[in-house]
Amino acid sequence: MLRWLTAGESHGPELIAVIEGLPAGVPVALDDIRADLARRKLGYGRGARMKFEQDELNISGGVRHGLSLGSPVALRIGNSEWPKWKDVMSAEPIDESKLGRGRGAALTRPRPGHADLVGMQKYDFDEARPVLERASARETAARVALGAVARSFLSELGIRLVSHTLSIGPVRVPEGSTLPTPDDVDTLDADPLRCFDEATSALMVAEVDDAHKEGDTLGGVVEVLAYGVPPGLGSYVHGDRRLDAQLSAALMGIQAIKGVEVGDGFLTTTRRGSAAHDELFVDGEEIQRASDKAGGIEGGMSTGTLLRVRAGMKPIATVPHSLRTVDVATGEAAVAHHQRSDVCAVPAAGVVAEAMVALTLANAMLEKFGGDSIGETRRNLRGYLDAIPSRLATGSTSRPFS
Amino acid sequence: MLRWLTAGESHGPELIAVIEGLPAGVPVALDDIRADLARRKLGYGRGARMKFEQDELNISGGVRHGLSLGSPVALRIGNSEWPKWKDVMSAEPIDESKLGRGRGAALTRPRPGHADLVGMQKYDFDEARPVLERASARETAARVALGAVARSFLSELGIRLVSHTLSIGPVRVPEGSTLPTPDDVDTLDADPLRCFDEATSALMVAEVDDAHKEGDTLGGVVEVLAYGVPPGLGSYVHGDRRLDAQLSAALMGIQAIKGVEVGDGFLTTTRRGSAAHDELFVDGEEIQRASDKAGGIEGGMSTGTLLRVRAGMKPIATVPHSLRTVDVATGEAAVAHHQRSDVCAVPAAGVVAEAMVALTLANAMLEKFGGDSIGETRRNLRGYLDAIPSRLATGSTSRPFS
Amino acid sequence: MLRWLTAGESHGPELIAVIEGLPAGVPVALDDIRADLARRKLGYGRGARMKFEQDELNISGGVRHGLSLGSPVALRIGNSEWPKWKDVMSAEPIDESKLGRGRGAALTRPRPGHADLVGMQKYDFDEARPVLERASARETAARVALGAVARSFLSELGIRLVSHTLSIGPVRVPEGSTLPTPDDVDTLDADPLRCFDEATSALMVAEVDDAHKEGDTLGGVVEVLAYGVPPGLGSYVHGDRRLDAQLSAALMGIQAIKGVEVGDGFLTTTRRGSAAHDELFVDGEEIQRASDKAGGIEGGMSTGTLLRVRAGMKPIATVPHSLRTVDVATGEAAVAHHQRSDVCAVPAAGVVAEAMVALTLANAMLEKFGGDSIGETRRNLRGYLDAIPSRLATGSTSRPFS
Amino acid sequence: MLRWLTAGESHGPELIAVIEGLPAGVPVALDDIRADLARRKLGYGRGARMKFEQDELNISGGVRHGLSLGSPVALRIGNSEWPKWKDVMSAEPIDESKLGRGRGAALTRPRPGHADLVGMQKYDFDEARPVLERASARETAARVALGAVARSFLSELGIRLVSHTLSIGPVRVPEGSTLPTPDDVDTLDADPLRCFDEATSALMVAEVDDAHKEGDTLGGVVEVLAYGVPPGLGSYVHGDRRLDAQLSAALMGIQAIKGVEVGDGFLTTTRRGSAAHDELFVDGEEIQRASDKAGGIEGGMSTGTLLRVRAGMKPIATVPHSLRTVDVATGEAAVAHHQRSDVCAVPAAGVVAEAMVALTLANAMLEKFGGDSIGETRRNLRGYLDAIPSRLATGSTSRPFS
Repeated sequence: MLRWLTAGESHGPELIAVIEGLPAGVPVALDDIRADLARRKLGYGRGARMKFEQDELNISGGVRHGLSLGSPVALRIGNSEWPKWKDVMSAEPIDESKLGRGRGAALTRPRPGHADLVGMQKYDFDEARPVLERASARETAARVALGAVARSFLSELGIRLVSHTLSIGPVRVPEGSTLPTPDDVDTLDADPLRCFDEATSALMVAEVDDAHKEGDTLGGVVEVLAYGVPPGLGSYVHGDRRLDAQLSAALMGIQAIKGVEVGDGFLTTTRRGSAAHDELFVDGEEIQRASDKAGGIEGGMSTGTLLRVRAGMKPIATVPHSLRTVDVATGEAAVAHHQRSDVCAVPAAGVVAEAMVALTLANAMLEKFGGDSIGETRRNLRGYLDAIPSRLATGSTSRPFS
Repeated sequence: MLRWLTAGESHGPELIAVIEGLPAGVPVALDDIRADLARRKLGYGRGARMKFEQDELNISGGVRHGLSLGSPVALRIGNSEWPKWKDVMSAEPIDESKLGRGRGAALTRPRPGHADLVGMQKYDFDEARPVLERASARETAARVALGAVARSFLSELGIRLVSHTLSIGPVRVPEGSTLPTPDDVDTLDADPLRCFDEATSALMVAEVDDAHKEGDTLGGVVEVLAYGVPPGLGSYVHGDRRLDAQLSAALMGIQAIKGVEVGDGFLTTTRRGSAAHDELFVDGEEIQRASDKAGGIEGGMSTGTLLRVRAGMKPIATVPHSLRTVDVATGEAAVAHHQRSDVCAVPAAGVVAEAMVALTLANAMLEKFGGDSIGETRRNLRGYLDAIPSRLATGSTSRPFS
Repeated sequence: MLRWLTAGESHGPELIAVIEGLPAGVPVALDDIRADLARRKLGYGRGARMKFEQDELNISGGVRHGLSLGSPVALRIGNSEWPKWKDVMSAEPIDESKLGRGRGAALTRPRPGHADLVGMQKYDFDEARPVLERASARETAARVALGAVARSFLSELGIRLVSHTLSIGPVRVPEGSTLPTPDDVDTLDADPLRCFDEATSALMVAEVDDAHKEGDTLGGVVEVLAYGVPPGLGSYVHGDRRLDAQLSAALMGIQAIKGVEVGDGFLTTTRRGSAAHDELFVDGEEIQRASDKAGGIEGGMSTGTLLRVRAGMKPIATVPHSLRTVDVATGEAAVAHHQRSDVCAVPAAGVVAEAMVALTLANAMLEKFGGDSIGETRRNLRGYLDAIPSRLATGSTSRPFS
Repeated sequence: MLRWLTAGESHGPELIAVIEGLPAGVPVALDDIRADLARRKLGYGRGARMKFEQDELNISGGVRHGLSLGSPVALRIGNSEWPKWKDVMSAEPIDESKLGRGRGAALTRPRPGHADLVGMQKYDFDEARPVLERASARETAARVALGAVARSFLSELGIRLVSHTLSIGPVRVPEGSTLPTPDDVDTLDADPLRCFDEATSALMVAEVDDAHKEGDTLGGVVEVLAYGVPPGLGSYVHGDRRLDAQLSAALMGIQAIKGVEVGDGFLTTTRRGSAAHDELFVDGEEIQRASDKAGGIEGGMSTGTLLRVRAGMKPIATVPHSLRTVDVATGEAAVAHHQRSDVCAVPAAGVVAEAMVALTLANAMLEKFGGDSIGETRRNLRGYLDAIPSRLATGSTSRPFS
């Protein structure tokens, strides 16, 4: 079983990410993690912060000479802006006279669509600073770092992930468009919106430009694809062991996500049964599925075909065209704070979603196959696939990773 | 913290449901649980089985003289058809000659859209009987029974739930329709499809009739509403503590659910930021939200306004108009088994979804408020609401349940 | 991962035990479970109740034709005395006039050494009945039933357990006495105190007789031995993953246990380092340990040698020679209730301890080896043992179970 | 619920400790944590390393201006010796020619009594370096740091802890000696062995001196006392919810601990029932317990009287007077590595045990009382104590902390 915790505030000295349960012998490379952290900043319509945020990355434990040790892996992501914030976010008590203005001013105008107001009620805070520091999307950097580690583990087991943008606001990739493969990651990352359909991408750029001009923001939908997943992850035997339930929690647990779909998701609810399921047929030696509407999950288990899940992100809630709020210090109507901000963070959400799917699948692999070294997990996986009788063999089971 | 386990096969002697962590002093009435079990069988387009399935219900432990004891509550739901299945599903070894035909015949034609094929691969079964017995929706009766207990606990704390059907296949309640309240449950239960919009309900009935005529099945979308939820359940401090993540897992963990939304969900992804969030304003002594697009959850926490989540169900996969499959005993093409079945189980899914939301909220209440007796939990809740400073008070916090 | 819950009150209609996570294909036989339930009643110095308590046992789910299905296994243990208690312990509200006397009288004299007083404070009860019904050792029958299932799983993997009594009150088996093996279970069960040393057993019988004569009760120490455990269960990488920590919680979580030891335990704390550890030497092809003071656990992991843990049980707290207490209805001094009772429950505690060790080891096996069918878990175990390089091979790794 | 993870190797750049679930508003002071880290190095008979190990401590997140934020608290403990180890323990691949000698030499002589050999088998390592780096007691510094945070939380709720040494090798404090209170911590820390009995302390010093002269090592027993614990933490309703089970796991999960006792522990097993339990009597307005043999835990719950638990530590396994082992590179007999080492680490174990008890109690407090701010938790605690009816009031409930 994998367990992980992240810590750190948006303007604190650093983020910390710890993951426990990873087998020994998994390659963990700073460059791979850095690459994913950089990918998280991609996307047309990102504001200034993403540009100057240079994450210093360190491995504090769990890795030696490039390989995991079986012990908890701890990562540390520095905050290059920390010197500007060291009083405001000091862990130690400070002279109050240093605060009160500028960065240190109390944030008493809770922003709609954010954790601000409820956070103050729940944790008994006077102002929103302590809330937004942790509720901020900055925290997802820690998850992306952990996801890079999970991705390396999965890669050793023949599983590869890719994510892409399905829609930005009302602009959406047409149904039936070609899906990207893991070999398309560079192409996707080069696209301004990480969209795999060129024509749609151009429309998305126009949509972002328009929203920017209007002082507005945009949301959208991302899709994560996992290739090489073996059949049988998750289980139907108990609700919380279903892989779709676990993936759903992982995706909905990302800031600003308001909807999750597996496979064709809500579209499937509008189809009739005769057209909604993936029929089975024999193709030579193997059983094949005639379609992949289910997104590679049936009965709460991976089917061994392409796994496909989606997350819908609301528009960024810090809207330049300001939203109405209340100043809780005075009780007067006010407009919400809206410092610098992005128009659209959907491409980045795709990278975060990849990380969460990677962590969830890595956990599911360990639950099914166990193993304390990567060789042991791999041997157990191979033994399972080899033992599936030929008459039950499906595409992915008869061609185990080599 | 609440923990629960369910057990039992579809045609086994009984289902078992156990929940641990419920405070003492919560009313637990057989009649309430029976009522919810009956509501789970509601809905136009249900097949024969639902009719003759009379659940005998017993409380095995955890309740005395109508009140919970603080110890695990165990429920037992008998299977009235058990005598017909006692050989096929016997826990003890039986003479093989008693099997092989009729109910006992090996199920070697895995049904598309079901757990059958992957289940056989995962658990090393020759045939699908052992899979479908547990993967069946019959198991949700155990969850509904547990949900009735959770609902009673929530009711003691001023929280009430209601669910309704938003769509059946392509027929959908218009945006902006009036939402039902807990006082509308009887009306809803009397509607053939548990739809709150009369005109839409009629269209839904027609859609079911048409699908039935065509030998086809239907899915749809249900929505669960929770009234009286205090602000601050769940948390933004860690991804897995977000209430939306937990609700999402709970709903996606129900059989046949392929999509989950919080509030306006995917619709929100198409809006611009200026129109997507719930603005704040002062209304007399309190802060109010100008709308409820967020579904009562911001920053992974309940806001104290109406909580609203949705689940999208695929059409029933046992389609009379049979689907293609393979007979794994012979390797030949075949059509899938399709005994008696329903056209549409969406209204029932609403009742199951209510149960899962009730369990999730009950757990979140205990996490925030603790308490080993209902009086203690209630006192802690009231103390929290009373302590929210008036300048931060929102509607639900200034009018605590009485 | 294994999860389990038990439910049911001492004088309720039945006990329920559910275990989730067991692979498919594990033999589960009613007779085996019944045998362990019978063994739980063994022991010289047991009172009348143990004699007439005939547990009716049913399997409610998770087992078909003698083999586990991979789904949760649910067991039900009837209470033959239920008819006498159906009013007092009714789940439904009853006419209060039926209570108040005899079995139904309020228990207002909390017994020292029991959960009574604190239970009333914690759960807000007027009297101790609701507390003692669940705190009673009767609940351990559910654990023993689950333990029998876990034991069957372990047995399929070459692991066998045995427990014996080390001491009764001050009478203790001499240091260095021969340890029983799993083949000695029948002999042990035939001994009045489940003691493997005949001479000591006789002294124990005398001690019980004397205590009985004095109206007093006795405690003692039991030891559980597990043969065939592979090396590497548990882990040093995190405190809560240590096998000794998990075993300790499992044993201390049994009613009346006040101390736990691994291997030589507290005796080891009095030795010097040069005499306290198990030295290593080469014996032909294998590395051997020169002793087994560590109880088969080093660095929080099983070493592959005999696993040995102990639990110390306090004397039964319901002492015929009554203890002082207070009647909380009157505030007056009183003596504690002490209906019929046993002099000594230590032999039974050994059987319960076996069950808890079996459950803990079964969970540790699944964590390390995974597997959804017994064949898969066994294959993974064998693959691991075979892959240990010969230069690291220790006794148990070079002779895998056949 | 509290969750925590630690990470980092003994000679790695730093240790990381993260704790999730702490309410907001808890004082967290670097100086308090540093003080506990310093106390962990106390004790007569400690080797050189403890002296020069100067832990640089940082708070990475979760604390602002001296108070917890409700978000995960992350601590970082630097390793002053890191420059000497940066090649040997580099997270990144290094030129192999830099290793092979001195610190970088392969450790192929597994030490008896350590995780070395099993760790190599389990995680598929060639040598013991990757094992001992994490299995080392250095990791307990991270736990002590977390424990200091938990202790501050408890302190806000009126709970204070103290630990002391009960025995060193065969030298033991006499039964019935005075127990220290939290006000005696400075006195204890000033004692060479953290023993509260002066005469025994002198004998312990002599014992350490003798062992040192003989090239040997010593173990012993520590006891942790918690004052001010309210009644009702933990529960009898399920085995794993018992406070004694949780404390037992916490203590047994510390490196080198082989036995755990609650209250009088194994001594109680030798007493008769009439002399083993804490009788109840009325003292003025309150119910009192006549003794504290149970260690403040009955029925798996805190009683509200002094909580008292013990851990038995085996002698340090790195024995100067070397132990026999095998060189796994050659298969030849060898003696175990034994660089610099301590004679006795029992006083330090007391400090670590305090930390584990603090974490366990903090978690139990949150489970019972909930709360997201320290004010909320405190209000809930007070409300609970105030609501206990006077006829059930015991000492600790009628005098709630002020």
